[in-house]
Amino acid sequence: MSDQKDNKQRITVSIYGQPYTVVGQESPAYVKEVAKAVDQKMREVKKHNPYLDTTRLAVLTAVNVVDDYFKVLEELEQLKQKSERSTTGDE
Amino acid sequence: MSDQKDNKQRITVSIYGQPYTVVGQESPAYVKEVAKAVDQKMREVKKHNPYLDTTRLAVLTAVNVVDDYFKVLEELEQLKQKSERSTTGDE
Repeated sequence: MSDQKDNKQRITVSIYGQPYTVVGQESPAYVKEVAKAVDQKMREVKKHNPYLDTTRLAVLTAVNVVDDYFKVLEELEQLKQKSERSTTGDE
Repeated sequence: MSDQKDNKQRITVSIYGQPYTVVGQESPAYVKEVAKAVDQKMREVKKHNPYLDTTRLAVLTAVNVVDDYFKVLEELEQLKQKSERSTTGDE
């Protein structure tokens, strides 16, 4: 997703009190769900780091989300390997 | 992960030209990998949205990462359901 102008759907969401126009092929409901998750994560990070300015807060939020992403990716890879092993009868 | 002070390991990384001290139980190698991914994603988002200030760029980066995260989570859920079905013999 990006906020560039093109011929795709444009959806405006509010994150941490600011409007963002997101462009993409995803449904408005999905885009709103993503925006809400970012907003919640930013407020959660802010709670633990009250002295952070918004830029550092947003970067640290991205760090947290990438951490979550890498962990889910790892779990997915392990499950894929496990399901391949059981399919080929290696277990 | 957070950048609060406590008795956990503190690792300083560079993201988009700024130093961030991340505190957590993860290895320095892992934290650096996460920071590198955020840095790369920010530069990628900036390429498509050159007019964005750093705060909006970081928020939009978090939006993109949550989007990736939700998609991997969805894939993981589907694989888990599929593996449960094949275990219980429903397929």
